[in-house]
Amino acid sequence: METLKKYVSVKDEDHFYHQGAAELLIFNFLLILTILTIWLFKNHRFRFLHETGGAMLYGLVMGLVIRYVTKSADVESGTVYECEKLKSGPSTLLINITNQVYEYQYKREISHHNVNGHQGNAMLQKMTFDPSIFFNILLPPIIFHAGYSLKKRHFFRNLGSILTYAFLGTAISCIVIGLIMYGFVKAMVHIGQLKQWEFHFTDCLFFGSLMSATDPVTVLAIFHELNVDTDLYTLLFGESVLNDAVAIVLTHSISIYSPKENPNAFDAAAFFQSVGNFLGIFAGSFAMGSSYAVVTALISFMHLTKFTKLCEFPMLETGLFFLLSWSAFLSAEAAGLTGIVAVLFCGVTQAHYTYNNLSPDSKMRTKQLFEFMNFLAENVIFCYMGLALFTFQNHIFNPLFIFGALVAVFVARASNIYPLSFLLNLGRKQKIPRTFQHMMMFSGLRGAIAFALAIRDTDSQPKQMMFTTALLMVFFTVWVFGGGTTPMLTWLQIRVGVDPDEDLKARAASQSAPNLDKNTTKAESAWLFRIWYGFDHKYLKPLLTHTGPPLTSTLPEWCNPVARLLTSPSAYGDQLKDDDAVYIINNDELTENCESPAHIPVPAQDSAGSIQATGKEDIQEGDLGLGGYELQLQHAAGQPQKSSLA
Amino acid sequence: METLKKYVSVKDEDHFYHQGAAELLIFNFLLILTILTIWLFKNHRFRFLHETGGAMLYGLVMGLVIRYVTKSADVESGTVYECEKLKSGPSTLLINITNQVYEYQYKREISHHNVNGHQGNAMLQKMTFDPSIFFNILLPPIIFHAGYSLKKRHFFRNLGSILTYAFLGTAISCIVIGLIMYGFVKAMVHIGQLKQWEFHFTDCLFFGSLMSATDPVTVLAIFHELNVDTDLYTLLFGESVLNDAVAIVLTHSISIYSPKENPNAFDAAAFFQSVGNFLGIFAGSFAMGSSYAVVTALISFMHLTKFTKLCEFPMLETGLFFLLSWSAFLSAEAAGLTGIVAVLFCGVTQAHYTYNNLSPDSKMRTKQLFEFMNFLAENVIFCYMGLALFTFQNHIFNPLFIFGALVAVFVARASNIYPLSFLLNLGRKQKIPRTFQHMMMFSGLRGAIAFALAIRDTDSQPKQMMFTTALLMVFFTVWVFGGGTTPMLTWLQIRVGVDPDEDLKARAASQSAPNLDKNTTKAESAWLFRIWYGFDHKYLKPLLTHTGPPLTSTLPEWCNPVARLLTSPSAYGDQLKDDDAVYIINNDELTENCESPAHIPVPAQDSAGSIQATGKEDIQEGDLGLGGYELQLQHAAGQPQKSSLA
Repeated sequence: METLKKYVSVKDEDHFYHQGAAELLIFNFLLILTILTIWLFKNHRFRFLHETGGAMLYGLVMGLVIRYVTKSADVESGTVYECEKLKSGPSTLLINITNQVYEYQYKREISHHNVNGHQGNAMLQKMTFDPSIFFNILLPPIIFHAGYSLKKRHFFRNLGSILTYAFLGTAISCIVIGLIMYGFVKAMVHIGQLKQWEFHFTDCLFFGSLMSATDPVTVLAIFHELNVDTDLYTLLFGESVLNDAVAIVLTHSISIYSPKENPNAFDAAAFFQSVGNFLGIFAGSFAMGSSYAVVTALISFMHLTKFTKLCEFPMLETGLFFLLSWSAFLSAEAAGLTGIVAVLFCGVTQAHYTYNNLSPDSKMRTKQLFEFMNFLAENVIFCYMGLALFTFQNHIFNPLFIFGALVAVFVARASNIYPLSFLLNLGRKQKIPRTFQHMMMFSGLRGAIAFALAIRDTDSQPKQMMFTTALLMVFFTVWVFGGGTTPMLTWLQIRVGVDPDEDLKARAASQSAPNLDKNTTKAESAWLFRIWYGFDHKYLKPLLTHTGPPLTSTLPEWCNPVARLLTSPSAYGDQLKDDDAVYIINNDELTENCESPAHIPVPAQDSAGSIQATGKEDIQEGDLGLGGYELQLQHAAGQPQKSSLA
Repeated sequence: METLKKYVSVKDEDHFYHQGAAELLIFNFLLILTILTIWLFKNHRFRFLHETGGAMLYGLVMGLVIRYVTKSADVESGTVYECEKLKSGPSTLLINITNQVYEYQYKREISHHNVNGHQGNAMLQKMTFDPSIFFNILLPPIIFHAGYSLKKRHFFRNLGSILTYAFLGTAISCIVIGLIMYGFVKAMVHIGQLKQWEFHFTDCLFFGSLMSATDPVTVLAIFHELNVDTDLYTLLFGESVLNDAVAIVLTHSISIYSPKENPNAFDAAAFFQSVGNFLGIFAGSFAMGSSYAVVTALISFMHLTKFTKLCEFPMLETGLFFLLSWSAFLSAEAAGLTGIVAVLFCGVTQAHYTYNNLSPDSKMRTKQLFEFMNFLAENVIFCYMGLALFTFQNHIFNPLFIFGALVAVFVARASNIYPLSFLLNLGRKQKIPRTFQHMMMFSGLRGAIAFALAIRDTDSQPKQMMFTTALLMVFFTVWVFGGGTTPMLTWLQIRVGVDPDEDLKARAASQSAPNLDKNTTKAESAWLFRIWYGFDHKYLKPLLTHTGPPLTSTLPEWCNPVARLLTSPSAYGDQLKDDDAVYIINNDELTENCESPAHIPVPAQDSAGSIQATGKEDIQEGDLGLGGYELQLQHAAGQPQKSSLA
């Protein structure tokens, strides 16, 4: 009898588990289907559907099937039980049911009006992820990859504009959407679609901040494929990367904005506290992320030179790189900061310093690993978005609200791009043309971040309405704008097929001679940035990597003993190149020694070192599945075969 | 008021979440520490501590700290609540506590006597993984990687011996351990340490089966590093890989062995049902795993040739490869089979067929990806084992039982290796020397699989005692035997520094001329294997890959239209090599065209094709962090730079 009972209990657990496997299997099949379709499309050069759009489409179909075909009612799952003895919800609950003790894990608190959603189809519930999975598992690799694969050269050339769009632009977008939505909400209350107390202005701002996170992954993929003008690509990519960080922190700050009395009235103290929160969280996350990257750089630097032979164990190196980067995320979360922002800046800093210290094998491994994780996570999220339209149980479709959001998103994007571009053009030597502005306006897609922010809290009815609306906005923008990118590029006559390196060289060559002394005319790389670059080049780079001048030449003389200790022996060989770095700063092109000497007339440069640097940069910028070729060439040519006896 | 409440509820969730981040952070730090230590050790060529041993050590220290330093009592977590209204445990439980509805997720059923373990330190509970994480997340990549990185050539040369050790050996080991433990249990009952009804013979067999899973990861790492004799390496590696699969299915079959009446009496019907279960599950899992791999091979084959240009998107290719392999695991689990076994054979088949169809870039990517996942998962498991000694709350330390297990494991290993080696040597031309047998005896470490099998069910007291004992056996064997590998190799005078390729070539050269017609003298690659090899080479390889003779030449003439359709155009070029494949079979060395023509006197062979094949095999056998060099050379030389406009 006892054995029989045990047998039954094992079977029971198996049942629970096998269902989990079946659900994951559904996701796997959707992703496989997506990949196969996209292969087909890529081979025929159909560009109207990106893999994210495809994943969403298949998810949608599968959601429809699950919703209307499967029907398995779990009788007990909609009932609420009373428990008088408990004062608060413990993290683990032991319950005695017909003389068997069951352990239950705390999941979340739900509002009374959502209880109904838990009745009925158990399959739908099973297909619903825990929202925290998005923030803790799926988004970090995407964001890290964005930071790690930033094209440094072009990014720094446009840093001023990118920061303006990302910070000022996102703030403008948030406020504009908030205001417009507040107007629509007022109108809805007026015609009786909403109750007055349901929607505060802060809720509208919350919606504004989450809808301000743009995600032009579809557009950028096409840009990359067609080799669209590098400046446009960089502006858009840089903006979207930083804009995510801003939107996430903004959303967090707004959600903890808590005026003491009337939530509708403006409370100056609470407002400034929110601004303070924003700045504090942003700065803290930035510091957390970059310090982990600096630690990684130091470790890899020390091992590479002092203890030697580190590069013989690329697996250990890659493992350390991965774990330290993930720790940046976890530390920030544990400290109450924003992990996503930390991981973004960790990625940027890793690319800037650590990457140079890695062995060629590790360089490739880290890039490919994060590329792959990014690819999978992105497709899972978009696939899930498709599913969520039918499987999420508390949708509130409000046509007026959705229409309002559509209008608000457009107006907000327009009042972000056009006025800021006008202002930036006043200072930029290299103006942002009208066509680029239109293209940027058109590329304001919403994606993974907006969705993840919206699904994080779907407890109250306003939040549910926002979630539904955000989801529909993602569908609309990804399919319509994502699909329309190629026609739009043709229509706006934006040049494609640009080789980024050639572009930069040509531009540098045309400017090099006459502009040598006009180093104050350009708004980009302004004084603040100049100081940072000088500091970075003179002190940080030599300290953390093997490039740059030796510290002995940059630090004051009395620091010499320390400087000698900290400088990599290989840095002395780079001493000559210091001159041309200064030249490059003067030339206002932060190309970081990566031009080949044939194209820029540089005084006294050892060409071998420079070619090597070019190789490095090229690897850095290798992209999705197409990079790494130069690396292999370099690797094969430069390295002896060390295949055994590590 | 409402806002304030919302604020509190958000904070609450944050609290739950931030703790999760902190726990993961602890793991991360342990792993980082492990990697840094191992780097140091590797640089100084200390071989007495492998990274897995190090991870275990750090985990142990951390567990000690958590156990005795942190103290956070969660008052409510040890109390059992009554719920009269419920008839069975639903998967999701909604509970109304002081007018707030909380959602709880079903976790597991626990026995009444274990309830006490849930009182007290909440931190300990938090650090306890869900056991299913081992089986569903950590083990699959390890096992897949083992299958994928199998050195085919050497493996097939020793297939007979490996299968004998894995199947017969594991069964012997299971029965011997079971019998010895049953003796000890009887003795314990006799002296009053155990109650009669607690421990059945099936429980002893269960323990025997889980302790039969050997995991010589530490030993193999040292073998690899020192280039120990290839035959010894292959025998041990092959045995441990297949032995895991056998042990897992065996454990499962025993756990569902349910005699109808007296559980101590022998029930023939139930026994044969268990044997049937074993065979059914094993065969089913094998079929599931290999069919997914065949599907992958077909897809990659079709795309590569027919639709062309697939290899231009290595990311999609890698993604498909990864998802289909994972699907093999999930499908097997969903169908009630053993996912781990499915994923093992999926790995072997992927390496045999799909690998040949992948683009060079994807070959490297898939290898590196699984290598990395294997590395991380292995270290996490060993780290967790260290932790579990102090953080697991239901340990039952029974010195007599532990001593019994120690004896049983040794006797069982000895009665597996020595008699079977004797029998095998009767048939083998290349005998297994005494020193190898001693080394194999010595390498019977227990590791991740034994631990995962033991932690899967720790509900009853016998199971808890088994878990504690298994854990201690892992510690003992990994530290003592793992650390003693190098001295043992020296003591047994086993040759190190062997180049596997040279070894094989030398052996082939010495046998080639005289043995050309003596093709029936060797026990290895016997008639069964010959048939399989012929079938594989003539039909499967041409159908699934680009190697081997065209189907038009191997299929009967009336199949020609179909054959022409299915054969890769590039296969016709290989037609000449068909002869030397036959030659190689005759030569009893299943080297699969991978010898360079300079070493074996082969009639009529196009040397270019053969060199290419050599390259392929070398990639296949590139190992942890050192492989891929040949690939890069080949890649750099053979491929044009296709860096843009995919």
